[in-house]
Amino acid sequence: MTEKLSKNPYKGTRDFLPKDYLEREYLFEKMHHSARAFGFLPYDGPLLESLELYRAKSGEEIVNTQLYSFTDRGGREVAIRPEMTPTLARMASKICREYPLPLKWYSIPNLYRYENPQRGRVREHWQWNCDILGQNLTSAASEILQLLLFFFESLGANSSHVKIYLNHRKLISFLCEKILGLSPSLHLPFFKLLDRSAKISPHEFREQLISLISNKDLIPLVERYLTCHSFEEAKTFFKQYQEGEEAFRDLENVLSSLPSYMGHYLEFGPSIVRGLDYYTGIVFEAFDQSPENPRAICGGGAYENLLGLFGESLEGIGLGLGDVTLANFLETHQLWPNLKCPNITLSCFSQEPLTFSQERLIYEILYYLRKKSFCAVWKPTPLKIKKGLQWALQNNSTHCLFIHSSTEEDAKTKDFLFSVKNLSTQQQQDFSLTTLNSSTEKSLLDFLLRPQQG
Amino acid sequence: MTEKLSKNPYKGTRDFLPKDYLEREYLFEKMHHSARAFGFLPYDGPLLESLELYRAKSGEEIVNTQLYSFTDRGGREVAIRPEMTPTLARMASKICREYPLPLKWYSIPNLYRYENPQRGRVREHWQWNCDILGQNLTSAASEILQLLLFFFESLGANSSHVKIYLNHRKLISFLCEKILGLSPSLHLPFFKLLDRSAKISPHEFREQLISLISNKDLIPLVERYLTCHSFEEAKTFFKQYQEGEEAFRDLENVLSSLPSYMGHYLEFGPSIVRGLDYYTGIVFEAFDQSPENPRAICGGGAYENLLGLFGESLEGIGLGLGDVTLANFLETHQLWPNLKCPNITLSCFSQEPLTFSQERLIYEILYYLRKKSFCAVWKPTPLKIKKGLQWALQNNSTHCLFIHSSTEEDAKTKDFLFSVKNLSTQQQQDFSLTTLNSSTEKSLLDFLLRPQQG
Repeated sequence: MTEKLSKNPYKGTRDFLPKDYLEREYLFEKMHHSARAFGFLPYDGPLLESLELYRAKSGEEIVNTQLYSFTDRGGREVAIRPEMTPTLARMASKICREYPLPLKWYSIPNLYRYENPQRGRVREHWQWNCDILGQNLTSAASEILQLLLFFFESLGANSSHVKIYLNHRKLISFLCEKILGLSPSLHLPFFKLLDRSAKISPHEFREQLISLISNKDLIPLVERYLTCHSFEEAKTFFKQYQEGEEAFRDLENVLSSLPSYMGHYLEFGPSIVRGLDYYTGIVFEAFDQSPENPRAICGGGAYENLLGLFGESLEGIGLGLGDVTLANFLETHQLWPNLKCPNITLSCFSQEPLTFSQERLIYEILYYLRKKSFCAVWKPTPLKIKKGLQWALQNNSTHCLFIHSSTEEDAKTKDFLFSVKNLSTQQQQDFSLTTLNSSTEKSLLDFLLRPQQG
Repeated sequence: MTEKLSKNPYKGTRDFLPKDYLEREYLFEKMHHSARAFGFLPYDGPLLESLELYRAKSGEEIVNTQLYSFTDRGGREVAIRPEMTPTLARMASKICREYPLPLKWYSIPNLYRYENPQRGRVREHWQWNCDILGQNLTSAASEILQLLLFFFESLGANSSHVKIYLNHRKLISFLCEKILGLSPSLHLPFFKLLDRSAKISPHEFREQLISLISNKDLIPLVERYLTCHSFEEAKTFFKQYQEGEEAFRDLENVLSSLPSYMGHYLEFGPSIVRGLDYYTGIVFEAFDQSPENPRAICGGGAYENLLGLFGESLEGIGLGLGDVTLANFLETHQLWPNLKCPNITLSCFSQEPLTFSQERLIYEILYYLRKKSFCAVWKPTPLKIKKGLQWALQNNSTHCLFIHSSTEEDAKTKDFLFSVKNLSTQQQQDFSLTTLNSSTEKSLLDFLLRPQQG
């Protein structure tokens, strides 16, 4: 093969160089930490599932236009997971009769959708999924919302950066079916239009709405509905139809149970619909408040019967939050921290080539330090002291360990002299040794564990 | 849809229930920790790559019989990664001219191969990959082997559990091409036979060898080669052909640089070949020493020109270690630790239903504890004290927080009394509050941070 291969990743996917990996890891650690703080347990499923699972559980749009599916070498129809909820439903249905309820589970799977790549939208992304199954929906919704706010606050965000918009599928259904009389085939296009309503001009919105609704007199009703930005306004809107009592009771019960300052984060969101079929109750989305990045960062909702297709019955609520939209959010508000390695890291080098026995000895010292949970990076080629210190700073090291040039006398033995330098205090200590003994070990540890800032 | 969906995962893949997830997480944490202790940086690539990449870089066997490949909706031929090295080569070739060398990178990707599922062999597994690129191969091989031993020791293993067998591709090539005169199409079948030699009977081995080698006089030579279990024996074997000088110099340089006690782990392995095309120098495998699980746990080797197809040139060495074989190894030697949550975890419940204002208050307390890095699991339905303590023990909690029954007087206010109990010392402290104030916070923290064992 003479032609060069492409160095680029597959369209819509990302390479994670160490710098990118550490950013992703920061997000994942906050997800793990937040979920565990609330008593959620981690789970994972396989990347491939039977196509049948998504045909039964995912929306039509996903299966027909976004799914990566194919037939395996044994003739099975399989798909790369486009969302985690069907896998969760499958796994939960298998064990829900033996496990103590509720199940409070979370996962951070990578998901694949055949998207047209653009800002905030890629073909491979990671999504934090948290679900509570088998708990009454008021307390479950309250916990999910508290978890989400805890997560945002752990990233340094507050209600000036992000708000959670709530709605209820019973309200959307009533609007769709009873007020507008839309046929089932028009529900999804209507949901998508509502979802886009804030991103397009009022004129464009009206044009597109006309193409869906035959009775034009109903258009001002939809427009009025979209002006309901508080729970009170929304309640008044639906009251004229004697509707909404159950939905608003659900919403109010949840809001009443939340610590009061959390109220700042929560608003009614008329355009929040969550198109997926399985939602039946409260639905929500977290929205970036910056005019520069007016996007949903996360969404979720309550479902009455996610496990029905498996012959089980458990109500629940879940949230999904993607890594790409979250990273855009942190970038927009400059909430990324400085991601330095928190450990004590030593950059280690010698000023001259070593003999095998000297090499063995230094490797023993480094091995000892690593067992004590320090990071020790060894430079295999000799470096002069100035270059060595530059290299240590490049590595973000806290300390430097370097072996001094041997005298003629030293060269006859395997003995050598080395120094350890604290790169923030500039303090330095010399060590001389033939073998690693406990007194050297102790003074080495004492030096390394001195406070970083002198 | 009336027929029930299957609750099982796709053939050859695994569901990770929380218990399984925590086991996998334990392995991953040891991988992360070991790699970072040696200064390796984490990276990741996409799950899908162009099929072309594997056609160019993976062995024929993988592409023709094991790869999951398909054509995407845009007509691109893609594949789910069956190994990480081609992705590493692609990513490294893209940045190697700007990055300081060596690259010391690691990753823990999930990989897919169309295998016939059996013990130790699944279709989806996770593999720890560590590579050093752009460093002289002696010191790089020394570091990779030290890293591998550090990893095994961090799992509690020693040289009675695992040994590393080394070989050199130059020796294998000489044996294959010059001593046996095998045509290129027979190399892979011969490699596979060598690889299986310890698992089949001497008679079966000879039968299969005869089917490959036309000149039967050569068969005793191969059998003699396979009896070389020390570097000295192997050296003597090749010396009769005036061959092996370079290979044994490589091996000896590496062995001389290792701390001497590591020698116990290392042996010459005549059947270690590592069939993949890109290895050119030292190759190695770690083998379980138990007769009950005589399997390779990990393998790797040195390559001179992994980036050649991308128009770049860097020598390197890498290792790959799979999660399934590692888990079998730990199980065989009973090296799994007790994987309890290391944090302080509180199971929290109330003995009676709460008012909304009481609920808000308890949620505030729990939120405060979570911000202080405790895990707090809330039970949304009331529990009597005995049931509540049982539930807390099921949760592996260290502490229990429970709200007492309200007196009539309490019920008028939002005030309530709660107790926190240390489940190992059985110590208990009572708290009464209207709002969360700093003095309650302090005494709560003091109580929780008391040593676990009385």
